[in-house]
Amino acid sequence: MAIKEEVLQYLRKSTGDVSGEELSERLGTSRTAVWKAVNALREEGCEIASATRRGYRLLKEPDRINAEDLLQNLDTQFLGKEIQVFKEIDSTNEEVKRQALRGARDGLVIVSEEQNGGKGRLGRAWNSPFGTGLYFSFLLRPEHIPEPLTNATLLAGLGVVRALRRVWGLDAKIKWPNDVVIGNKKICGILTEMAAEIDKVQYIVPGIGINVGNQSFPDELAVKATSMLIELGKPVKRSEVLLAALEELDKLFIEKEFPLEEYSDLCVSLHKKVRYTRGLKSYTGTAFAIAPGGELMVRSDEDGTEIPISTGEVIVQGIYGQNV
Amino acid sequence: MAIKEEVLQYLRKSTGDVSGEELSERLGTSRTAVWKAVNALREEGCEIASATRRGYRLLKEPDRINAEDLLQNLDTQFLGKEIQVFKEIDSTNEEVKRQALRGARDGLVIVSEEQNGGKGRLGRAWNSPFGTGLYFSFLLRPEHIPEPLTNATLLAGLGVVRALRRVWGLDAKIKWPNDVVIGNKKICGILTEMAAEIDKVQYIVPGIGINVGNQSFPDELAVKATSMLIELGKPVKRSEVLLAALEELDKLFIEKEFPLEEYSDLCVSLHKKVRYTRGLKSYTGTAFAIAPGGELMVRSDEDGTEIPISTGEVIVQGIYGQNV
Repeated sequence: MAIKEEVLQYLRKSTGDVSGEELSERLGTSRTAVWKAVNALREEGCEIASATRRGYRLLKEPDRINAEDLLQNLDTQFLGKEIQVFKEIDSTNEEVKRQALRGARDGLVIVSEEQNGGKGRLGRAWNSPFGTGLYFSFLLRPEHIPEPLTNATLLAGLGVVRALRRVWGLDAKIKWPNDVVIGNKKICGILTEMAAEIDKVQYIVPGIGINVGNQSFPDELAVKATSMLIELGKPVKRSEVLLAALEELDKLFIEKEFPLEEYSDLCVSLHKKVRYTRGLKSYTGTAFAIAPGGELMVRSDEDGTEIPISTGEVIVQGIYGQNV
Repeated sequence: MAIKEEVLQYLRKSTGDVSGEELSERLGTSRTAVWKAVNALREEGCEIASATRRGYRLLKEPDRINAEDLLQNLDTQFLGKEIQVFKEIDSTNEEVKRQALRGARDGLVIVSEEQNGGKGRLGRAWNSPFGTGLYFSFLLRPEHIPEPLTNATLLAGLGVVRALRRVWGLDAKIKWPNDVVIGNKKICGILTEMAAEIDKVQYIVPGIGINVGNQSFPDELAVKATSMLIELGKPVKRSEVLLAALEELDKLFIEKEFPLEEYSDLCVSLHKKVRYTRGLKSYTGTAFAIAPGGELMVRSDEDGTEIPISTGEVIVQGIYGQNV
């Protein structure tokens, strides 16, 4: 570990002031090295008070994501055994795919403070500015790919929902297949990509974007988007959100059984009017169940037939302020 | 076009000797440039006779694959509008996938004289030495992806079969799903890979390896492998094989209808004893049809049920010298 990280950890654990002398003795390094480390931490946004004869005190840490930090606090079986943190990247999904082509291992996590080419479902752009969102993607090799495959994207959404509920008590739910919503507003979007031979999946890459620190949204988005800061009324560290999400996702992708009942209970699309498309035409109906293969089961308004929806967009009455 | 290519083309068209003076006049370049071009062509393996006062004559061309040459002779609608030729590469499939991530266009073709990491189906290595095989892969974006998707790999096999039959009169057939065989021996293997969102295919990459110039095979392979040279008793230019295959593939991937009857007629797996696996167990039966979704339909020996096989290996009685 870098001296800088060791100094930061020591300061975190200390309740009072810590002298430069104490730090240099405990960490087995010179006073000059300690002084340089403190300055480096300040440059990264840490507020560290220093008083002659008394020493240093950590007042505030910036909400930076730090790989060493994450690895030290992460409690998972396979997910995030390797985590790479970028300050800026085109897209965390693209980076995982590039590394997968070069042989990256199952469970690799790529996080970025910012994406300049972030992607949403169906080729849409996903706005990914610095400082408010948590953007990460991970690699699933065959041993952690669910059966049927289509459940992968549902599991990714469920993992985020579980984390937001468990750690922050948020009333997070899922708009099928994998938008995470609070009330009628979106707090997280997920894009799951895969590479395969025609009859054999090689790997899956779920990419997750969570609105963490947005104070507000522009008018046209405000009706359909929210953030953890808005919902909780206080800031949350993105690294804590990442840790909680990775731990839930780790468990879900190790389980062999898809938690259909839990997912269904948390799915806001059910027992609501929906609008869906088949071919080029658009229809309305009522969503009434999730099928074991992950499809949204809809009873058609037209003739009452039960239709499994597996692709495309489904508009749900009231969600995101939309009418069916 | 490089002077070298212009000189080569001029020499190809000329039946008698061509003087350096004629070449330099017709190509609008200096005598020295002509002389350098001739030497460069010789270094690449061209045999060019030269006699004082008479000039140059092309005696023999090496079987090199040249992108400009290909583009000039290729008659396709979308496939190979961009062709890149490598002397050596890890794998043509990997290169197409790398370029696809960077936005390469529908129909891109990557050819290599040699692959140092050639891949077969199910993660196997595909031996790809210099000088005997034709190794190429291409990119299919959604407008040329067949419906259902699983037919893509069958179409790739059928394209090669059509080319070998049309141009060289070879009795090429298909071992389901896409090995190309002559008699009981394999002459071409195909690996088709894809990238997708969970509910939407982004692109498909069929990769094709054809045994063109192998004079013989090691003992353990001789019973199950053959080449165009062995079958025809005379050498064939790889670039001609590539052109013929691309033209047939271009037509097949533009057609919207899968030619099920033609494929079935050419499929050596039908009406034969086969061994297949389901789960971890292996069974025998008789293949009797190709389903519209591309599955091999097998009547089980055990209880006569009709089973669609869509994945994994199927051993066919007699093919590759194997017994069921």
